[in-house]
Amino acid sequence: MIRVLLVHDACLVRSVLAEWLRREPGLGVYDTPWHQATARMRSVVPDVCAADLDGSDAQGVPTLAELRKSDPRRPSPQLVVLASANRPGLLKRAAEAGALGYVDKEGAPERLVRAIHAVAEGERFVDDSLGFGFLKAAQIPLTRRELTVLGLAAGGASIAEIAGSLHLSHGTVRNYMAAITRKTGARNRIDAIRISQGEGWL
Amino acid sequence: MIRVLLVHDACLVRSVLAEWLRREPGLGVYDTPWHQATARMRSVVPDVCAADLDGSDAQGVPTLAELRKSDPRRPSPQLVVLASANRPGLLKRAAEAGALGYVDKEGAPERLVRAIHAVAEGERFVDDSLGFGFLKAAQIPLTRRELTVLGLAAGGASIAEIAGSLHLSHGTVRNYMAAITRKTGARNRIDAIRISQGEGWL
Repeated sequence: MIRVLLVHDACLVRSVLAEWLRREPGLGVYDTPWHQATARMRSVVPDVCAADLDGSDAQGVPTLAELRKSDPRRPSPQLVVLASANRPGLLKRAAEAGALGYVDKEGAPERLVRAIHAVAEGERFVDDSLGFGFLKAAQIPLTRRELTVLGLAAGGASIAEIAGSLHLSHGTVRNYMAAITRKTGARNRIDAIRISQGEGWL
Repeated sequence: MIRVLLVHDACLVRSVLAEWLRREPGLGVYDTPWHQATARMRSVVPDVCAADLDGSDAQGVPTLAELRKSDPRRPSPQLVVLASANRPGLLKRAAEAGALGYVDKEGAPERLVRAIHAVAEGERFVDDSLGFGFLKAAQIPLTRRELTVLGLAAGGASIAEIAGSLHLSHGTVRNYMAAITRKTGARNRIDAIRISQGEGWL
C-alpha cells in the first residue's frame, strides 16, 4: 500500500480527484488544502506527496522544500507535482525542492497514477510535454536577489519600503528595478511584474 | 437527460470531474477548456453550462455573457459557475451574465450535482458560503471606467498608451489612477493592481 497525500486548494476538485485516486488498488489516499499541508504531512506520514503547484505560491503556505521536510524524525516523502509548462518558475522551485515526479495538468489523469507508482519506487517521472517548461526554467533571466526585490514590489511595497526591508539604499533598489525591467523585456515596472507573474517566476 | 457542458481549463482535473459527473444518472456530460468553449457550446447544445470562473478572466476566452449566447438560433443554456467568495469581481460578472447557479469551490462536489439539477428546472442555486462574496461584489469601489484604466495598466501599458487607447488626455488618466489608488486603499499603482487582482475585480 502506497500512502499518498494529495495537496490541492479547492475542496470540490480535491475531493473528486482523491475519490478517483482511491479506486486505484494499492493506494491509500488522503487529501489536504495547502495551508494545512504541514500538519497533515505529520499526521498522515505519506510515502508520496502529490501537490498542485498552482497553490504553492500563495501567501502563508509552506514552501515545497519545507513541506517535504515537515517531519524531521522521518525520511522525506517523495514529491509528485501537478504542473504547467507555462509556469517555469514553479517547475524550477519543484526541482530545487527535490521533486521526483512532474505531471502535466494538461495531460490525462492516468499519468498521475503512473507518476505516484514511479516515485514510490524511487524513479523519476517527467511528462514529455513539460520539457519546454523546464527549458524556460533554466533560462529565468533574473537573479535570486532581483526576484526578491520584484516580489516585494509586486506586493505593493514602495522603493523606500523595499530598501528598508533589504537594508539597501534607495539608489540600489532603483538600479535593481531598472535591471529587472530591462532583463524581462518589460515596458515598465508594472509590466515586469505582469510578465514575471505570468511566467511563474514570482 | 440533462446535457451538461463542463468548462474548466486544466485537462487532468476536468477529465476526472467530468467522469465523476457521468456516474450521476440523468446527466449527459461533455467537457471543454475555456478557449474552445464557444465552439463546443454550438456543437453540444447543452441544457446547462457548468463553468469554472477562475479560467474566465484569461485573455482570449469568451466572456460569460458571450458564452451563454454563443448560438443565437437557440435558447441560451442555464449557467452554473464554480466560484470562490474571495473573488467577488468574478461573482459579479457571473451575475451580470445571468448565471442561475453559484457553487462554492470550497464545498462538497455533490453541491455541483444539486446545482445542475436546480438550474435545469429554471431554479436559482446559491451556496450559502458565497454570501460574503456577493456582499463584497456589491461594494466594488471602482467604476467601470476606472476598471478599464486599471486593466490596461495591469497589462503593462504606460500612461501615454492608456491615454491613446481610450482617447483621453494624460492628465485625465493620471487623475483616474490617483482616484483608483485612493479608492482601493492602496499605497501606489502596483499595490492597486495587486489588490484589485486579488479581489477578482480585474
